[in-house]
Amino acid sequence: MASAEFWYEFASTYSYPAALRVAALAEERSVSLAWRPFLLGPIFAAQGWRDSPFNIYPAKGRYMWRDLERTCAAMGLSLKRPDPFPQPSLLAARVALALQGDERANFSRRVFAAEFGEGMAIGDRATLGALLADCGIDPAATLERAESDANKALLKAECARAVEIGIIGAPSIVAHDGEVFWGNDRLEQALDWAAGAAESP
Amino acid sequence: MASAEFWYEFASTYSYPAALRVAALAEERSVSLAWRPFLLGPIFAAQGWRDSPFNIYPAKGRYMWRDLERTCAAMGLSLKRPDPFPQPSLLAARVALALQGDERANFSRRVFAAEFGEGMAIGDRATLGALLADCGIDPAATLERAESDANKALLKAECARAVEIGIIGAPSIVAHDGEVFWGNDRLEQALDWAAGAAESP
Repeated sequence: MASAEFWYEFASTYSYPAALRVAALAEERSVSLAWRPFLLGPIFAAQGWRDSPFNIYPAKGRYMWRDLERTCAAMGLSLKRPDPFPQPSLLAARVALALQGDERANFSRRVFAAEFGEGMAIGDRATLGALLADCGIDPAATLERAESDANKALLKAECARAVEIGIIGAPSIVAHDGEVFWGNDRLEQALDWAAGAAESP
Repeated sequence: MASAEFWYEFASTYSYPAALRVAALAEERSVSLAWRPFLLGPIFAAQGWRDSPFNIYPAKGRYMWRDLERTCAAMGLSLKRPDPFPQPSLLAARVALALQGDERANFSRRVFAAEFGEGMAIGDRATLGALLADCGIDPAATLERAESDANKALLKAECARAVEIGIIGAPSIVAHDGEVFWGNDRLEQALDWAAGAAESP
């Protein structure tokens, strides 16, 4: 079966619409999808950025928010800008990584909807605990696993892996043959590629 | 009738596939299209960049060339990387601006095809003269007009106008209601917008 990885970052604006539509697109193409939360911070830091490029370059930021408005409107998704932007996403990424399968995907979608659909701050334990409970997942046990040394080390390794693969932004899709596609606007192309590559000899 | 502006830069990689497909997309939607050559240099300089961001950030550059390969392959367009990249595009922009209507569009497509389809250097007068002749346009008279003070001033004004409108990259489409869309991957959305906006009251 064809497979692909969906790499996303909770602070990333375009990861929001992508997270809310990628599962259906993968299913339509019979592509099995692995959700891989990671952090853009280390990647941006390697390029000399200490903040979101959308804050460093205000004209780019203005354009992005307007473009995202159009994208969300076309999908019927609400959009409310979280303050501050970007939101601290470290703990959310650790929690997502501490979950598996559908629980990871469900929790991740819930976080994105809260953050960009409702403008909620998603940086603290209490908020993430409530979002876990919304998904029917035990908050205390999950947060404890999320903050274990092993899980922290795993997230670091995931970020290093992202750089190694050639990921430069989020969201990204990596097909099982290693092909990297960046952006919410590349999801269809990426999953078509993954489905097609599985058929080639 | 619905109308839109196609803003492009001869040194911009994604302007190549965009220039070769935008006219058909506009025609399908009955959108009248104005071709507006400009320079990204002043916009990039305002962000502190003295080179293409694809050179400043090598990981982004590697991704872009691979992504462009896929885009061109899907369109059946050849792709040959010009050396050096980016190519000096000032004179080509002046020449395009000195032409009108179909001559401007034809010459612009010819330059992009030479530069990114054949890997040709497009910076000098002799090359641009030959490309003009290919299009059945008088090279000497056009180059003289291109290098007139009035035309040079016009190009400067076009670049200032691009910043004013909120253009942050090339290619961009600006609908007649002022809505800006950036990227080869936004052409359809932009022209749909332009066609739809013309119908609203």
